[in-house]
Amino acid sequence: MSKAVRNPERHAERMAIKQKIMQERISKAQKEQGVLLVLTGSGKGKSSSGFGMVARALGHEMKVGIVQFIKGAFSTGEHAFFRDLPNIDYHVMGQGYTWDTQNREQDVVAANAAWDIVAGMLQDDSYDLILLDELNIALKYDYLDLDRVLDDLQARPEMQHVVVTGRYAPQELIDIADTVTEMKVVKHAFKDQGIKAQKGIEL
Amino acid sequence: MSKAVRNPERHAERMAIKQKIMQERISKAQKEQGVLLVLTGSGKGKSSSGFGMVARALGHEMKVGIVQFIKGAFSTGEHAFFRDLPNIDYHVMGQGYTWDTQNREQDVVAANAAWDIVAGMLQDDSYDLILLDELNIALKYDYLDLDRVLDDLQARPEMQHVVVTGRYAPQELIDIADTVTEMKVVKHAFKDQGIKAQKGIEL
Repeated sequence: MSKAVRNPERHAERMAIKQKIMQERISKAQKEQGVLLVLTGSGKGKSSSGFGMVARALGHEMKVGIVQFIKGAFSTGEHAFFRDLPNIDYHVMGQGYTWDTQNREQDVVAANAAWDIVAGMLQDDSYDLILLDELNIALKYDYLDLDRVLDDLQARPEMQHVVVTGRYAPQELIDIADTVTEMKVVKHAFKDQGIKAQKGIEL
Repeated sequence: MSKAVRNPERHAERMAIKQKIMQERISKAQKEQGVLLVLTGSGKGKSSSGFGMVARALGHEMKVGIVQFIKGAFSTGEHAFFRDLPNIDYHVMGQGYTWDTQNREQDVVAANAAWDIVAGMLQDDSYDLILLDELNIALKYDYLDLDRVLDDLQARPEMQHVVVTGRYAPQELIDIADTVTEMKVVKHAFKDQGIKAQKGIEL
């Protein structure tokens, strides 16, 4: 063991205190409601975290909607894996990364068509969880009307969870969200160390 | 649109520059190798991100090993979802959150038995991706010998990816990792707003 265990009794004691704190916190947290979760920042893991929540929800036999903004040109592993599963409704915006299109008008049309699909899901309480992958990028480039997006999110069914991913989450979205995580790069193999984007990890 | 698009030509130009930067970066990043990825910090999304990468890897028909440290007492959605899929080898340490056990000796035995399984995977190049969920917590409590863990990780097959999750990643692990993301809490529904941990999101 790298550090000696100084005092096993003190350890059990500390764990008991921690257990008590956790129990109190859980007993105070009694509100059952749909959560709006935002995963932002420049670190790796935002989209994959959203897809992990999709898997978790499917494991609970929940119905899931996915709309992927921006990443359409790529055939990603998550699309291959999830698209044909039961209880899942998977849409891809289909325009590729923005810096590959260079056609703003086309991006705006595609983003708004994708949002029309989202708006339908946000009015349908049979969807338990909706993943809006890379929505923040579409908002960052003003491909969508932010007010429309915020209004539709806030008018959704009370028990519906929504997960929004992508860098540059606008402050207005953070303000109405319940849980927000910022993913920070500590180091990155792709940028720092000349390692290619790897299947299963990046793609 | 919330902000007017000031200049569509300038937009296309900026996107072209961005495309060029991305292409140069990709052409420089040519090393094909297994990546050691660490997801740490106190923000929400570490484990779910690991499970999203599992889904992505399965979508590429890669073989995946999962060993879950610490969370054993919970029947989580991801376990229900992934455990019986083909190409997956899923193990749960089986002792519950540490603050529910209060028995250090038992935790140490369980963690080491779990690591024996990991060590086998780390010597077997048929595993393309290995997820070590909440390993950092087991290291934090010195349930495992850190040197053994680091040695086994570094001796693994060259093309094998490993994803390690959990708060409190030790500096020695960060030092040997290729990509490290720190997840920061911006806000948290469970702690800040009295909302219960929700199926599909937290569980």
